Amino acid sequence: MVLRYFGIRVSDLDKSVKFYTEKLGLKLKRKGTMYHGGKWVLLEDPRSHQRLELNWYPEESPYSTSLEPEDRLDHIGFKVQNPAATFKRLTSQGATPALAPSDKHGVKGIYYVEDPDGNWLELF
Amino acid sequence: MVLRYFGIRVSDLDKSVKFYTEKLGLKLKRKGTMYHGGKWVLLEDPRSHQRLELNWYPEESPYSTSLEPEDRLDHIGFKVQNPAATFKRLTSQGATPALAPSDKHGVKGIYYVEDPDGNWLELF
Repeated sequence: MVLRYFGIRVSDLDKSVKFYTEKLGLKLKRKGTMYHGGKWVLLEDPRSHQRLELNWYPEESPYSTSLEPEDRLDHIGFKVQNPAATFKRLTSQGATPALAPSDKHGVKGIYYVEDPDGNWLELF
Repeated sequence: MVLRYFGIRVSDLDKSVKFYTEKLGLKLKRKGTMYHGGKWVLLEDPRSHQRLELNWYPEESPYSTSLEPEDRLDHIGFKVQNPAATFKRLTSQGATPALAPSDKHGVKGIYYVEDPDGNWLELF
């Protein structure tokens, strides 16, 4: 038994693939279509080999769901050289800032931005 | 920039640690307490090195949330030798079955069970 990947739901597959590959450096490993028309894209970090699967479901799929703000995993952790600089780069490229050290509930040295569906990405 | 782990919220930390270590074979790597009293436990699969962080928040934490059925990631993929046998073992040990090949929306050869908070685990 081997844990192979974590799968999250996305509302716009192309947008999410672009975000995770172009902005966060993950690589596309495989992709496919489910029997009910849903699509999946398996991404992998070339350094840590952690794997993220993006899952998109059409409206008629039995697994379709409207994504609510609470409807997401807790967070995904990215280790970066300079969290402040990466936070600045990602937010200047359009990512929504979630939490910075200077915010009320902020944590020293740790920054958070949102992915296109509102999942929190921790930059530590 | 390196993707290091995926973090999920749990409602009962001890129960979830036991589930993922004793039933699914993950190993405890590190654990700690957050400034607002929340607790985290970092688990790793010794074979694939995929990492899962369990996060628990006390009621007074700004990140506390009541976990709703929809409030979870899509699924976590476990590659297993014999999906049917692993499904049988986990459900006989108390895991809630989520989807089997014989179910209405079932997929050939793939079984799903729930973790203690209702996250779907795919056995493929």
